[in-house]
Amino acid sequence: MYKAKVLIRRRASILDPQGKAVEKGALLLGLNNISNTRIDKYIEFTVDTDEEIAAKEEVTTYCKKLLANPIMEDFEFNLEKI
Amino acid sequence: MYKAKVLIRRRASILDPQGKAVEKGALLLGLNNISNTRIDKYIEFTVDTDEEIAAKEEVTTYCKKLLANPIMEDFEFNLEKI
Repeated sequence: MYKAKVLIRRRASILDPQGKAVEKGALLLGLNNISNTRIDKYIEFTVDTDEEIAAKEEVTTYCKKLLANPIMEDFEFNLEKI
Repeated sequence: MYKAKVLIRRRASILDPQGKAVEKGALLLGLNNISNTRIDKYIEFTVDTDEEIAAKEEVTTYCKKLLANPIMEDFEFNLEKI
């Protein structure tokens, strides 16, 4: 069995309105040094197979078809045997 | 200046309905080995100060007051000098 850890990030060229919004809140709290906030997704799940190549394929399909938006996000992942 | 990398996770005891939802989608795609999907937040931003202690305080306040929900999420972060 593998544990997959996936990071899904908006491309740098694409604005992050949620990040901008919390940053405005930070200013109101007196946190004046914070900038460039980007809020991305970190996803963990288990893959119930002992074949690493099959696990990689399954994780890649999961990311491409469901977890990431291919128009504006990139993903990277690593697998850890458990 | 520091770059802060923050991971905000729902506590393990708290259900993740978004994770459950995409997992149902995975089954429909024929990905039968995936389980325990948890979708959490990964946040990056810069902190414009050269004092590490001040940067840590600012990041902690930002996490506690704005980024994380203290009722059901925990956060961890690291700072990297840039």
